[in-house]
Amino acid sequence: MNQRRRSHNVRMALGEFELIERFFTRPVRRAVLGVGDDCAVLAPAPGMQLCVSSDMLVEGRHFLSTVAPQRLGHKALAVNLSDLAACGAEPLAFTLALALPRADEVFLQGFADGLWALAERHGIELVGGDTTAGPLNICITAIGQVPAGQALLRSGARPGDELWVSGTLGDARAALEGFRGTLDLPGTTFAALRRAMELPEPRVVLGQRLRGVASSAIDVSDGLLGDLGHVLRRSAVGARLDVDALPRSAQLAALPATVQQECLLHGGDDYELLFTAAPVRHDAVLAAAREAGVAVSCIGRIEPGRELVVTDGRGQALEVKRGGFDHFKP
Amino acid sequence: MNQRRRSHNVRMALGEFELIERFFTRPVRRAVLGVGDDCAVLAPAPGMQLCVSSDMLVEGRHFLSTVAPQRLGHKALAVNLSDLAACGAEPLAFTLALALPRADEVFLQGFADGLWALAERHGIELVGGDTTAGPLNICITAIGQVPAGQALLRSGARPGDELWVSGTLGDARAALEGFRGTLDLPGTTFAALRRAMELPEPRVVLGQRLRGVASSAIDVSDGLLGDLGHVLRRSAVGARLDVDALPRSAQLAALPATVQQECLLHGGDDYELLFTAAPVRHDAVLAAAREAGVAVSCIGRIEPGRELVVTDGRGQALEVKRGGFDHFKP
Repeated sequence: MNQRRRSHNVRMALGEFELIERFFTRPVRRAVLGVGDDCAVLAPAPGMQLCVSSDMLVEGRHFLSTVAPQRLGHKALAVNLSDLAACGAEPLAFTLALALPRADEVFLQGFADGLWALAERHGIELVGGDTTAGPLNICITAIGQVPAGQALLRSGARPGDELWVSGTLGDARAALEGFRGTLDLPGTTFAALRRAMELPEPRVVLGQRLRGVASSAIDVSDGLLGDLGHVLRRSAVGARLDVDALPRSAQLAALPATVQQECLLHGGDDYELLFTAAPVRHDAVLAAAREAGVAVSCIGRIEPGRELVVTDGRGQALEVKRGGFDHFKP
Repeated sequence: MNQRRRSHNVRMALGEFELIERFFTRPVRRAVLGVGDDCAVLAPAPGMQLCVSSDMLVEGRHFLSTVAPQRLGHKALAVNLSDLAACGAEPLAFTLALALPRADEVFLQGFADGLWALAERHGIELVGGDTTAGPLNICITAIGQVPAGQALLRSGARPGDELWVSGTLGDARAALEGFRGTLDLPGTTFAALRRAMELPEPRVVLGQRLRGVASSAIDVSDGLLGDLGHVLRRSAVGARLDVDALPRSAQLAALPATVQQECLLHGGDDYELLFTAAPVRHDAVLAAAREAGVAVSCIGRIEPGRELVVTDGRGQALEVKRGGFDHFKP
């Protein structure tokens, strides 16, 4: 019997409980009880508060059908870890709910490999969830812990604070435009941009190092200006942002200036941390970034009032649209 | 402008953030931080462990397109509260991830009404989540708390324990057969059965009262025999079950005996608690049920070995298939 035929047979024979047992069950070390009962049971450490985040990934919206299953498994967990990072939380556990058109073992093996690799790197355990037949949909809820009162929030930015961002911005959006055919990209450039889109690295260690240093934080998932807008609204402040100071990869820097600006400001899917810190914390921010092994860039400043001014490197104000990505607006 | 036209305009203009703000944001009382930041923040009480459960509902699998939005909102949360109940947990908070084909305000208002009504009745708060465009999919993660070490598990059943179930079984399955056209049901019968399918009542108070009384518990979601099978496997025991002792509604009792048996043993979607308790706890079980305002029935006994014997009222063994519902098996 050849491989293809065997694989087909296994696929048809794979039931819900066998699927969970085979791909999504590993012994838990930190949780009291993992997969296999009605609930998972967790014992948070004394004095800790819990951070909880749920993200749902839908094909065609959050990933393309062309993505390798390993990368999809990575990304599904990464976007949730990114939310924990933005709160400065240490990841503890996650649940996975999965709707699958069919129990395809090749897909499942790849997806599980990508998921477990990232989970193990961050010491986070899969403790429960659900699987069902249905249009492909991945919903992960991640749970982390922070010392009581120390979660980084969107509401803490104060006038005078420096505005920072980790890593580089815009690559994921440029890759998407490559897939859409609106950007003609050389093969190696496209591969690098695509990697940024499909394998985002959640800034989990940086987030924890920024506790007590940053005054506010958010992860950049809907585009820089959209997510900065959330911080400004919640903190009731304005900001001044220098487009030329925005960190970008060599690949992005080789694209036309108008494309760069669109990808940097409105890109989405960056999963970098956007945060603010008082100027006296400047060196502490750099030290936190060094400890986390992540580059950070000072890209502007929080100002009084409610206005967002975007300038070029010479301080000249630019006309930009302000919104981020909205799943229900055209 | 007539209502239909206005409703259409509102629907088109409703963006993701407005949708969350309008339907799914209410001030939190127990959580430290609710909807609107990267994570929700919870402060569990000292000495408590956390119970976490995620369930994903897909149209055509877990609900029919004919369900009223209010009932769907109720059921989506109810199935998760049922998991917390099966662990004996007190509900605290939940997240909601929602994929919607479009931002339809009539659907959303109904769904939110049903969801909030049940949430408020159980003092559980919506603390975060996600909305996206996509095929209709509802994923809720519920978080509850139990005193450390007191969670009810599937693994605690011991030979000699009595086997109990709350409420009645089989109505939801009978309703489904009505929808499928395999059962011809009088209108009032169908309405009552349908109500049981669409508005299950999670046994949250009973679950908590059974802490320290029951030796094991599970909620009946995939059919009595399937879920009992999980308890028997986890506890490494067998059981003897009397079909005639299975509690059923007047509507179900009026259907043919073979239909009753199928619905009672293999029904699914019951969301009753199936639990075991030592015979010396018999009166304590009845007292817990009285306090919770829920009927309970003793339906059999846990036995040594690994066999499940299903009998009629005269102790005559019946031939029955053993499995429960599996989302990936035909």
